[in-house]
Amino acid sequence: MTQDKYQFTPTAANHVALSPVSFIKRTALMYPDHDALIYGTRRYSWGEVYTRCRRLASALGKHGIGRGDTVAILAANTPEMIEAHFAVPMSGAVLNTINTRLDSETIRYILEHGEAKVFIVDGALAPNARDALAALDHDILVIDILDEQGDQPPSALGDTDYEAFVQAGDPNADWQMPNSELDAISLNYTSGTSGRPKGVVSTHRGAYLTATGVISDWGLPRHPKYLYTVPLFHCNGWCHAWAMAALAGTMICTRAITPAGIFAAIDQYKISHFGGAPIILGMLLNAPEKVKFDHKIEVMTAGAPPPAAVLQGIEDLGFNVTQVYGLTETFGHTVMSSWNSNWDALEPNQKSSLKARQGAAMVHADGVRVLDDLGEDVPADGVSMGQIFLRGNSIMAGYLKNPDATADAFANGWFASGDLAVMHENGYIEVKDRLKDIIISGGENISSVEIEGVLHRHAAVAFAAVVAKPDEKWGEVPCAFIELKENKSADAEEIITFCRRHLAGFKRPKHIVFGELPKTATGKIQKYELRKRV
Amino acid sequence: MTQDKYQFTPTAANHVALSPVSFIKRTALMYPDHDALIYGTRRYSWGEVYTRCRRLASALGKHGIGRGDTVAILAANTPEMIEAHFAVPMSGAVLNTINTRLDSETIRYILEHGEAKVFIVDGALAPNARDALAALDHDILVIDILDEQGDQPPSALGDTDYEAFVQAGDPNADWQMPNSELDAISLNYTSGTSGRPKGVVSTHRGAYLTATGVISDWGLPRHPKYLYTVPLFHCNGWCHAWAMAALAGTMICTRAITPAGIFAAIDQYKISHFGGAPIILGMLLNAPEKVKFDHKIEVMTAGAPPPAAVLQGIEDLGFNVTQVYGLTETFGHTVMSSWNSNWDALEPNQKSSLKARQGAAMVHADGVRVLDDLGEDVPADGVSMGQIFLRGNSIMAGYLKNPDATADAFANGWFASGDLAVMHENGYIEVKDRLKDIIISGGENISSVEIEGVLHRHAAVAFAAVVAKPDEKWGEVPCAFIELKENKSADAEEIITFCRRHLAGFKRPKHIVFGELPKTATGKIQKYELRKRV
Repeated sequence: MTQDKYQFTPTAANHVALSPVSFIKRTALMYPDHDALIYGTRRYSWGEVYTRCRRLASALGKHGIGRGDTVAILAANTPEMIEAHFAVPMSGAVLNTINTRLDSETIRYILEHGEAKVFIVDGALAPNARDALAALDHDILVIDILDEQGDQPPSALGDTDYEAFVQAGDPNADWQMPNSELDAISLNYTSGTSGRPKGVVSTHRGAYLTATGVISDWGLPRHPKYLYTVPLFHCNGWCHAWAMAALAGTMICTRAITPAGIFAAIDQYKISHFGGAPIILGMLLNAPEKVKFDHKIEVMTAGAPPPAAVLQGIEDLGFNVTQVYGLTETFGHTVMSSWNSNWDALEPNQKSSLKARQGAAMVHADGVRVLDDLGEDVPADGVSMGQIFLRGNSIMAGYLKNPDATADAFANGWFASGDLAVMHENGYIEVKDRLKDIIISGGENISSVEIEGVLHRHAAVAFAAVVAKPDEKWGEVPCAFIELKENKSADAEEIITFCRRHLAGFKRPKHIVFGELPKTATGKIQKYELRKRV
Repeated sequence: MTQDKYQFTPTAANHVALSPVSFIKRTALMYPDHDALIYGTRRYSWGEVYTRCRRLASALGKHGIGRGDTVAILAANTPEMIEAHFAVPMSGAVLNTINTRLDSETIRYILEHGEAKVFIVDGALAPNARDALAALDHDILVIDILDEQGDQPPSALGDTDYEAFVQAGDPNADWQMPNSELDAISLNYTSGTSGRPKGVVSTHRGAYLTATGVISDWGLPRHPKYLYTVPLFHCNGWCHAWAMAALAGTMICTRAITPAGIFAAIDQYKISHFGGAPIILGMLLNAPEKVKFDHKIEVMTAGAPPPAAVLQGIEDLGFNVTQVYGLTETFGHTVMSSWNSNWDALEPNQKSSLKARQGAAMVHADGVRVLDDLGEDVPADGVSMGQIFLRGNSIMAGYLKNPDATADAFANGWFASGDLAVMHENGYIEVKDRLKDIIISGGENISSVEIEGVLHRHAAVAFAAVVAKPDEKWGEVPCAFIELKENKSADAEEIITFCRRHLAGFKRPKHIVFGELPKTATGKIQKYELRKRV
């Protein structure tokens, strides 16, 4: 009798690296002529996408690109961006998607820090890229995406255009699975609101498990019709391109995200699923051309808790909203506000507030905790605030070339999110604020998100953001920036009176500023811009 | 610039062992009062099942059971059997489910070979277990399942009854995830048609990935209502209990599988999914009390290709059949006959023959190949036969204490199935026979499955099985065993005339034997019994 009788050495037959690139190989075989992606007048089947990806991987190989190399891409959600998500890993290289709204100096920094050897550039974004390249400290192969479907003709910057580059590749060339599932698949830089952006390295294993996790937790069916409004440069579009490959789904891509465009796409392609920032939901709700659909559209939203009023309004149009939470470091969603049928009979506003919770750890996450300053779990009472800590296989491998920041992030064996939340009794967290967004007034912690939630319930408010304004007496006081709906009006006094009914005195905004709010590419309100203004 | 910049050391935060026991922890937190399992008059929520599993894991620990130990169970699909699938791994031990139809001598062999320290016995199966225990060469803790819902009162054999044992456990005791995801989770013995059964060791990783794989590939929604007709002793019920935990589904368990019971359960619980051997589909179709349902019921079937006539008939009742293929060594299904909407417009019999294909490698499998005697892939022409080879993370770690058989099974880096199939152009395999079921007549290979398919199309045939009969002239000839439908009749001449219309001369059965066919617990026809008879 031996304790070791259950020990075996893994073999090639029973241990295969987890990688989402396995999904496209299989789907191309099983569903070669099913639509994989539709972008304006361009339409590709899974067989075509796979062939194009094999060509691109082969062409990269011919240029000496392989394991451990970085391939950067600055692009909108076009077919090229989708293809890069498969072809670059198939070449063995690491995909570095770059936020399209970044300034040229930050782009240059990212290309240098990530040591990119190839830079694929969307012609619509050429000006910024040109300046970044002019200042770059190393040689780089520039590949131009010359997409004719943009607002203006694309500009060529570089050495070769994407189509020619792809066509030069061999569709029958072998490509490789990663040596290890812990090999890097992507490099995504944080927004870098404080100091230089950090390079988040994610793994093939994390991508595979996030993809199968969202299939399980979002209840994704076979062959969904997915409108890809989440930018693919953002946590690799929450790994949804990979999930769609697993399900043989169809991705509908658009360059511009407008309410009219979204409504038209939903109608034309019978969209079953899409993902977007809360601000997109608000845009849809406030659009003059809004449409009520007969079929149910599952919407995933993240980034900031959507106001209850927005949630309620959008569901009346046929959308079912699921709130998720995650960061670049968690490869997108790692917490989901899964619905519970026990709540079906609740009042609409109770339902909305439940839906505004970020939720529980997804199936691929190992867990989510909310810890106080002493590192103890806060009570699951929906009131006690603490920092969110996350663990699981989708958490980044680490920050590129930054062991100190990596060690800090993982100091207690969990990833420290920098976000503040409460824990509810059902294991659902509710994000209250960024650590740095908390307003400390007269010694009291005030959640800017709570105030924003109240402001969004005012009938004239389209968007609201609250930041701390230095104050002689209180230290800080809440300052509210408000963008009003078209054809609606309100003045500061009316807003403050409204808040008086819904907020404790110390939480009420002491200053109100009206005007259009600055937003990021992903629809997040740029609070750091607002902080500069106060 | 360094090639190693993407190398990181995994940490507790970003590398967590894959294990299906993580599913129950999460679902018990999120859906504590949702139905987890229903068995006759017994009904448990996910919170209750989790608590009971924690107690059972703790009680096992108190009895010194832990990592590397074997806990055997001989039971029908009762709540205890489901609980063992979570609690035994939570205790660190390996679950050894034993086929309830085995003779006492084989049970004794399995308990000794697996070195079981605990034996959980369904009181309805006590007689066989008693004889096995009487001859056992080592001490073992016997726990009796005293289920009052069986056909007869259960007998107690052992040291303690299951309920008392569970109640003695601490519901708040810690339980452990595996040290490594490659740790064994289960031990399932092969049927052992040739020589002693072999102990197939499967891993936590394989169980996790098979569960998420079937969720993705079968399109399982959140909260399915799953009728558990697949015996849990069979490849751990295809890992479906673990998938149901991930989805917070409800498992409806029954001790007896009868057409009346299945129809009643579907109606009462609005069953959305179930799995069963083709023989169960045949039983449903031939039942006098058959019901046509308004809602769609997804049925997974495996074990032998269901005859086209059965497939067609069952779908008219509201069932949608998906064919899968796998072996104990692959942890159940690893190949699935996923439907392709391109086939929607085909004629019913064309659809049925497509559905009778076993399909393509599932998402969690790395691939399936059909190799000829030289180890080369056969052409994907639907005609050329070869042996099925499989690879992926759900393939067993190996055979327990049998390194030679393990090495043989993995000789070429793939798992050798022992089954014969053709490969179709879309990557779908179609099983033609067991290697040993092939009939070699006058130098020609004859597929017994092909002949059986023809026989099943005869209106009077309920079940048919064809085996080789030694023949002086031809070496072997096909001999058909036929069980007729109730109230139908046919004689050998009529059957042979029927075959003449549908089969080449050398494939026609030369002998016809009428009578009830011997079947296993899982509904497989026992061909070895028939071989003894010819």
